[in-house]
Amino acid sequence: MIEAGIIGGAGYTGLELLRLLVMHPQVKISVVTSRRYRGRQLSEVNPHLLPFIDLEYEEVDTREIADRCDIVFLAVPHGSAMEYVPGLMEHGTRVIDLSADYRLKRADFERVYKRMHKDKEERDAVYGLTELHPEVADAALVANPGCYPTGAILAVAPLVKAGIVKQVIFDSKSGISGGGMEPSEVSHFPNLAENIIPYEVTTHRHVAEMRRELPVPLSFTPHVIPCIRGILTTAHVFLHEGELKTYEELDEIYRQFYRGKRFIRLMKGMPSLSSVRGTNFCDIRYEVEKESERIVVISTIDNLVKGGSGQAIQNMNLMLGLTEEEGLWSPGLVP
Amino acid sequence: MIEAGIIGGAGYTGLELLRLLVMHPQVKISVVTSRRYRGRQLSEVNPHLLPFIDLEYEEVDTREIADRCDIVFLAVPHGSAMEYVPGLMEHGTRVIDLSADYRLKRADFERVYKRMHKDKEERDAVYGLTELHPEVADAALVANPGCYPTGAILAVAPLVKAGIVKQVIFDSKSGISGGGMEPSEVSHFPNLAENIIPYEVTTHRHVAEMRRELPVPLSFTPHVIPCIRGILTTAHVFLHEGELKTYEELDEIYRQFYRGKRFIRLMKGMPSLSSVRGTNFCDIRYEVEKESERIVVISTIDNLVKGGSGQAIQNMNLMLGLTEEEGLWSPGLVP
Amino acid sequence: MIEAGIIGGAGYTGLELLRLLVMHPQVKISVVTSRRYRGRQLSEVNPHLLPFIDLEYEEVDTREIADRCDIVFLAVPHGSAMEYVPGLMEHGTRVIDLSADYRLKRADFERVYKRMHKDKEERDAVYGLTELHPEVADAALVANPGCYPTGAILAVAPLVKAGIVKQVIFDSKSGISGGGMEPSEVSHFPNLAENIIPYEVTTHRHVAEMRRELPVPLSFTPHVIPCIRGILTTAHVFLHEGELKTYEELDEIYRQFYRGKRFIRLMKGMPSLSSVRGTNFCDIRYEVEKESERIVVISTIDNLVKGGSGQAIQNMNLMLGLTEEEGLWSPGLVP
Amino acid sequence: MIEAGIIGGAGYTGLELLRLLVMHPQVKISVVTSRRYRGRQLSEVNPHLLPFIDLEYEEVDTREIADRCDIVFLAVPHGSAMEYVPGLMEHGTRVIDLSADYRLKRADFERVYKRMHKDKEERDAVYGLTELHPEVADAALVANPGCYPTGAILAVAPLVKAGIVKQVIFDSKSGISGGGMEPSEVSHFPNLAENIIPYEVTTHRHVAEMRRELPVPLSFTPHVIPCIRGILTTAHVFLHEGELKTYEELDEIYRQFYRGKRFIRLMKGMPSLSSVRGTNFCDIRYEVEKESERIVVISTIDNLVKGGSGQAIQNMNLMLGLTEEEGLWSPGLVP
Repeated sequence: MIEAGIIGGAGYTGLELLRLLVMHPQVKISVVTSRRYRGRQLSEVNPHLLPFIDLEYEEVDTREIADRCDIVFLAVPHGSAMEYVPGLMEHGTRVIDLSADYRLKRADFERVYKRMHKDKEERDAVYGLTELHPEVADAALVANPGCYPTGAILAVAPLVKAGIVKQVIFDSKSGISGGGMEPSEVSHFPNLAENIIPYEVTTHRHVAEMRRELPVPLSFTPHVIPCIRGILTTAHVFLHEGELKTYEELDEIYRQFYRGKRFIRLMKGMPSLSSVRGTNFCDIRYEVEKESERIVVISTIDNLVKGGSGQAIQNMNLMLGLTEEEGLWSPGLVP
Repeated sequence: MIEAGIIGGAGYTGLELLRLLVMHPQVKISVVTSRRYRGRQLSEVNPHLLPFIDLEYEEVDTREIADRCDIVFLAVPHGSAMEYVPGLMEHGTRVIDLSADYRLKRADFERVYKRMHKDKEERDAVYGLTELHPEVADAALVANPGCYPTGAILAVAPLVKAGIVKQVIFDSKSGISGGGMEPSEVSHFPNLAENIIPYEVTTHRHVAEMRRELPVPLSFTPHVIPCIRGILTTAHVFLHEGELKTYEELDEIYRQFYRGKRFIRLMKGMPSLSSVRGTNFCDIRYEVEKESERIVVISTIDNLVKGGSGQAIQNMNLMLGLTEEEGLWSPGLVP
Repeated sequence: MIEAGIIGGAGYTGLELLRLLVMHPQVKISVVTSRRYRGRQLSEVNPHLLPFIDLEYEEVDTREIADRCDIVFLAVPHGSAMEYVPGLMEHGTRVIDLSADYRLKRADFERVYKRMHKDKEERDAVYGLTELHPEVADAALVANPGCYPTGAILAVAPLVKAGIVKQVIFDSKSGISGGGMEPSEVSHFPNLAENIIPYEVTTHRHVAEMRRELPVPLSFTPHVIPCIRGILTTAHVFLHEGELKTYEELDEIYRQFYRGKRFIRLMKGMPSLSSVRGTNFCDIRYEVEKESERIVVISTIDNLVKGGSGQAIQNMNLMLGLTEEEGLWSPGLVP
Repeated sequence: MIEAGIIGGAGYTGLELLRLLVMHPQVKISVVTSRRYRGRQLSEVNPHLLPFIDLEYEEVDTREIADRCDIVFLAVPHGSAMEYVPGLMEHGTRVIDLSADYRLKRADFERVYKRMHKDKEERDAVYGLTELHPEVADAALVANPGCYPTGAILAVAPLVKAGIVKQVIFDSKSGISGGGMEPSEVSHFPNLAENIIPYEVTTHRHVAEMRRELPVPLSFTPHVIPCIRGILTTAHVFLHEGELKTYEELDEIYRQFYRGKRFIRLMKGMPSLSSVRGTNFCDIRYEVEKESERIVVISTIDNLVKGGSGQAIQNMNLMLGLTEEEGLWSPGLVP
């Protein structure tokens, strides 16, 4: 059995790792930390985990965790992961960081996140968008992608790699669980129900990941919708003149690109958040606008699974030589 | 024009008073207070009030407010109203208190709310359930009822007054706006959406008001449902043996009791929260269970209007000799 | 009193006309038709209108309606309005058509809606986007705009008229009431809750109205979100090179353009669906993306009010020489 | 591998059987029928099942299905199951019927469901409320309980069996998926969102199952709440005089009664619909009202799992000698 640790096991990302890992046939969860709940039973704090886990929350001790674990997930806020990564790696464990701390080069990180990077080393983290970066298999440190970039990049990567894209506008709609477990004005039910809330419409930091992976002019505007889980991204794609493809040509490009990628489903019908709810799938559909140079690509993911903890486990599976879909293979919770 | 003041004008209750009073043809809002937003324009803090009001939030000065206002609404938390009432009344203004501070006798208040009452006097507040207490017209101090008691008491008062009720179980379902404007665990969208949350299932303090107005054995259990506004109360009413009424007899009892009460609508179809949304109506329907001694009465109100600020204005209208429905007369926001 | 008639008074558009007109101080509703409910009391079919209206649904008799009414609203499906307009106009009444039948030139209508126009005459209908077409005041026939075009056109008209826009992508998110009263797969709660549904992503017919009013390259993609009322439109606006404006310049353009338009609110904060809920306002906010040629404009409306029945009444007010905001002036239902 | 068949595999109940059975390690789905979709791929009609199943919908042929299957699930409407059961049993397969057709004695069925029973035989179906009826293990025909009875009966069975209950009032709140896949007025989003809909408040047929299993005076009132999955039942329990138990005594009664029942979780905190979402758990909490003879018991289930298809599989597991929780053991989808 693989021994796994979770640093930051009391937020949505940590709990989603737990929800999935308690069912993973090859993984034993050895340690879960939480400052806030140190010493308390996980299943007491989170009754939905009863009786799936019999552990107490611990304090972080990177040396001890590294000793006890084959792999460690960091599910802590941006800025905190970099405090633990050096210690964990020094002691020889492999790390999957779900924060933003190692997704960008140090200089880019500092510019985008407006804070100094505390890690003395510039580490070679692999960007864990599994379908595009099979080299995660050999990584010592994986930087798990942001939720929005996962859905957005997967939606248009085949077209961008084909060299036919002039410009992309990503308009994304996310469930509120992406905002975390802490009650806030945006997550306050009377504010979000019967509403939709655009935010950071020209300034969201995730655009940096998108631009790095998709070297074309692109812009990104996120919105929160009144639902718990899921991100639907509407990609308005403009092609270079004369490059407009028929649906069949597009379809061929996508099918070639994602051949053998089991978590990508190319859909004839419209993707929905329910088909991916609780799963690691990314569903994608494309449509050509007649008499125009526009293609509209729609992608859906569960922000907490493919957009977070599921993708992290997908990376873990590859890093440890397991089948990619181990512990992640189930239909969506429909309806 | 009547000059009205609102102490506590930044919470849901205060804002609902404002939403209604800015449209009231006979009222001029003279002063609105808020500690938190003192000195800021109301319409800047609450953009939905733009351009309906051109006032700044002020600090409370009871003497000055009493001087400037014919009537003052207290929309502050339980325990705070009693700090302002003595000063306001001393300076001769009439007061409608939307908190719980004057709804019960002092001794009952202290027992139920588990705190000392700070008002030195035991004041003769009239309980402002307008349909049952026309004497509000002459009151100097009105204690506006709780949201749950309003819907519950109106649902069964005709039966209780008829002396045929053995026992009542109120099972109420409320929108979350009843919980106020402050984000909390219960109001956190991922906790409330796709859920229903029972709370204080045997201990909710509103039962004291119900028992005072309805002297029969009764119990009360509230739940929060995933909607913003509205309370639906399901009253399971058991009659004394042999007292079971036909629908027609029941209907006669209700029609007699509520004759001329324009905000009570006795419904043939099932009441809904949308029919009362944004309005001061209380919709009521009753059904006799065959081969049983049970009657099920369903009532719906908008918790912020008939269950709060609207009823307060209804009381104001009576106190000031206006038509009862002035400023409150509009159909529900359907759909 | 103005005598008004509603043809098609049992759908959401007709009911919203009723909700607003029963409160309009200068209007008497003289006749309301419905094939389905002919002979039944309006308030029996629609209990939320109790006791605001005491009329029965009638059959359509255009001559009689024209005789009895100063103004007639057509709230019938596309393709049906054109059956009534000739008769109504022949008998000399003025008409506000809420369907799409007279929004486009005959040829454009037939191409976009893929059906023959049955009216023998090509009539000079005025496009009733009130803020842009003050000539509605003199119109005999007003074609009330579609819900999406209302929010979209108002969002960017000032920029387009200023001649600085290269391209616009409208990404709109609508409440489901826009889909009407008939239950459907999309409106089925388990399909829409916890979801967002893009549809006609490159083919929605409303784009024709937008292109006519905004002569720049533009595309449009609509989505349904899990809420009842409201449309939020995200306009991704790209300017001609060198034309990028500062926020202050933009703000000046908008303020000049909408000077005196009382239903347009230019917002510093983010518009929300609740601030416009139940109202005729269109709230607009704009933001400049740094180091880019993009401006993001967000607009919100209540699709049934400013996007439908409210705007129709606004047009009626102008046509009949009343104040523009008569019967429409109230703050949004917040929360 | 066990070969399983599903008659009626296109509704919510059938799809939920599929969602669970495709992951069941010991089951092969051999045949799935649907009149409506005969000849079409399951995963084309239900894209969330892609690529978990590679079967076409077939027509029902009871003889052939009986030959091919070790166990057959009937997920068809009330009144239809009785058409298939005789044929299936005659050909020697075991049957789990998710409809109401065999839950009551013939005479009771005909009285409650107001239709003739078409099966010539009165069959000895076992009522498949697994925790109370371990004899399902040997049954040839299992009548799977209704969704409401499952949550209601489990909530109070320990108290009723202890002989201390005088009367129970069940007030249940259900997600709308219980109403099925067909769009209706109640499931129309604008009708259900921001609302709660009581229905059949004194006449719901499920009360017959409850009364059979719980021989005490009881009444039942259901409501639909704006959520997709889940039933929360509030049981207002009145005890015989002098029987009022302390919390500790109650707790002992429940723990004894449900010892070893792995899908019953006795909760210290308040049960929620999310903790049981997608799972076969029934979470239960009880609270004693001071100075009263009332106990309030709250239970939650996922109506489609423990209240339907999950419980059916739990029964299948027992019938076939498997571990009770095989294929059903996972934490709830939180948040």
